[in-house]
Amino acid sequence: MKVDCNGAKRDIRALWFSGRKLMMIDQRCLPHRVRVEEYRDHTEVATAIRDMVVRGAPSIGAAAAYGMCLAAMNDSDLLMAAKVLKAARPTANDLFFAVDHMLTRLSDGEDPVKAANAYADTIVNRCRTIGENGAPLITEGGRVMTHCNAGALATVDIGTALAPMRVAWEQGRKFFVYVSETRPRLQGMRLTAWELQNEGIPYAIIADSASGFYMRKGVDLIIVGADRITANGDFANKIGTYEKAVIAKALDIPFYVAAPISTFDLSLPTGDEIPIENRGEEEVIVIEGHAIAPAGATAFNPAFDVTPHEYVTGFITEAGILRPDEVRKIGGSDGE
Amino acid sequence: MKVDCNGAKRDIRALWFSGRKLMMIDQRCLPHRVRVEEYRDHTEVATAIRDMVVRGAPSIGAAAAYGMCLAAMNDSDLLMAAKVLKAARPTANDLFFAVDHMLTRLSDGEDPVKAANAYADTIVNRCRTIGENGAPLITEGGRVMTHCNAGALATVDIGTALAPMRVAWEQGRKFFVYVSETRPRLQGMRLTAWELQNEGIPYAIIADSASGFYMRKGVDLIIVGADRITANGDFANKIGTYEKAVIAKALDIPFYVAAPISTFDLSLPTGDEIPIENRGEEEVIVIEGHAIAPAGATAFNPAFDVTPHEYVTGFITEAGILRPDEVRKIGGSDGE
Repeated sequence: MKVDCNGAKRDIRALWFSGRKLMMIDQRCLPHRVRVEEYRDHTEVATAIRDMVVRGAPSIGAAAAYGMCLAAMNDSDLLMAAKVLKAARPTANDLFFAVDHMLTRLSDGEDPVKAANAYADTIVNRCRTIGENGAPLITEGGRVMTHCNAGALATVDIGTALAPMRVAWEQGRKFFVYVSETRPRLQGMRLTAWELQNEGIPYAIIADSASGFYMRKGVDLIIVGADRITANGDFANKIGTYEKAVIAKALDIPFYVAAPISTFDLSLPTGDEIPIENRGEEEVIVIEGHAIAPAGATAFNPAFDVTPHEYVTGFITEAGILRPDEVRKIGGSDGE
Repeated sequence: MKVDCNGAKRDIRALWFSGRKLMMIDQRCLPHRVRVEEYRDHTEVATAIRDMVVRGAPSIGAAAAYGMCLAAMNDSDLLMAAKVLKAARPTANDLFFAVDHMLTRLSDGEDPVKAANAYADTIVNRCRTIGENGAPLITEGGRVMTHCNAGALATVDIGTALAPMRVAWEQGRKFFVYVSETRPRLQGMRLTAWELQNEGIPYAIIADSASGFYMRKGVDLIIVGADRITANGDFANKIGTYEKAVIAKALDIPFYVAAPISTFDLSLPTGDEIPIENRGEEEVIVIEGHAIAPAGATAFNPAFDVTPHEYVTGFITEAGILRPDEVRKIGGSDGE
């Protein structure tokens, strides 16, 4: 992705390996500061995943792969490292997928750095293909809506939901993106807006609650990411996704989910089985260090919701665009 | 409403007249500080309405009535004062209704203070009746959801959407309220949470985007306020109301709108004719003085949305609960 570093445009990833260290953009400091942190062992990486230095299902997977790489390089107990990393966050499938993938590769005697780099490169290549597969959905003059950040930051590079936008933009099409701010952590306002601005793609930030207003006014296409997709085509994504899907259906707006095969968890029959992470109430009631709610207030903070398959027009994957009833077809691939 | 002032519970209104001054709680300072400001002429009142010292359609109406009262007491040009007050905000019907009401009363030679007090008292009495009419909808153990603040602060006292909750609570029923925070100005988190906490009614604040999540989990009833209701039963209310209504319909959750007759504008055939106020983008991208979005970001900030009548189960008014197709019936009342 293009990043404006002290006035110069650079092309960097959300995370990469350098020497014996994992380097990650601290996504909590964006958009005002591009701060890159170094990680030397898997416990530091697990903490960074838990504290959301890195977020977005595929980036979490890549960070965990590098965590396993560091564990191997440091001669740590790999099964223990796998357990620690998998416990960092509960909802995204990519985390478990990446750790298991690395366990297999490492037990096959593969070089840890090569294996982890290959894992990250594979994500980026798949995102590129997702972008190519999804770009035709974005038409000249189109109005696209997305939620949260399923961009380069969330997927090492390029993005899932943002990939079709990047490719359509490269192909010369002009379109406009509605970015819902994504409370409570504001990943839309902080991260997606930052990525689109760096690319030069026109957009506007809106309050999450204004999504329906603009959908009713005219939105041609909604593309979101996913944290886990189950066998029947239900999927978990950032809280608020379900609402957009229901309204899109009421207004006949195509609703697409962009995700690599690693996000599919065919071991779960339906979305009801996806564990939903509840995060601390302070994320809701304290903003930028200021307590907003009355003293003694209670808040609930589910980080994800589940959208039933009947609201999904299609899944944009590296294997093409799948209807929800076609999800089971990918059972034979590396998605299981 | 009950207000905790330096540890003691007092019963005060959102605004009241004292001597030759209008006193108003500055709602922008809540929930952390109960600051009461004094207003001595109608231009100050118009500015306070515009700057949202006072908000909520019926409270805006009452403030404007007192503004006209001050204009009369100060021997200002009443038609000019009416124009200045009406220009303060565009969406709520009560503002125009109150100013016209006062013009008639003053031209009939009525005492300005008596007329304005009567206007405010009428609102409060109507809210009490709205509460009594709506309370039976709230059942023991019920889960109620509301949006923004349609409480005592918004209606001089008691509230519209919160009135049935206050009355049901007085009647001894236990229930739980989901309060959506209501970005960008967070009236749910700041004001509704504060009112419920002062009453002792159990509640939790949620991000606006989590409304659908909890509706799907189980909500028995949604009650919101309204800023303007048109002849066909469409209505304008705080941005995000439309989304909740669409999801409620998809999940078969009863969706009620609580509003006094003064909120009905039968001169408009449908909601498409309601002017929607667009507020500054800084309300979205600057939070508590901190710029959150990337430098140069654009944001859109519509303050209201329109919900079509087919999503409304009923309007809870002082004249009873009306179905959307019964709205035209009230044409003969003071709602026109």
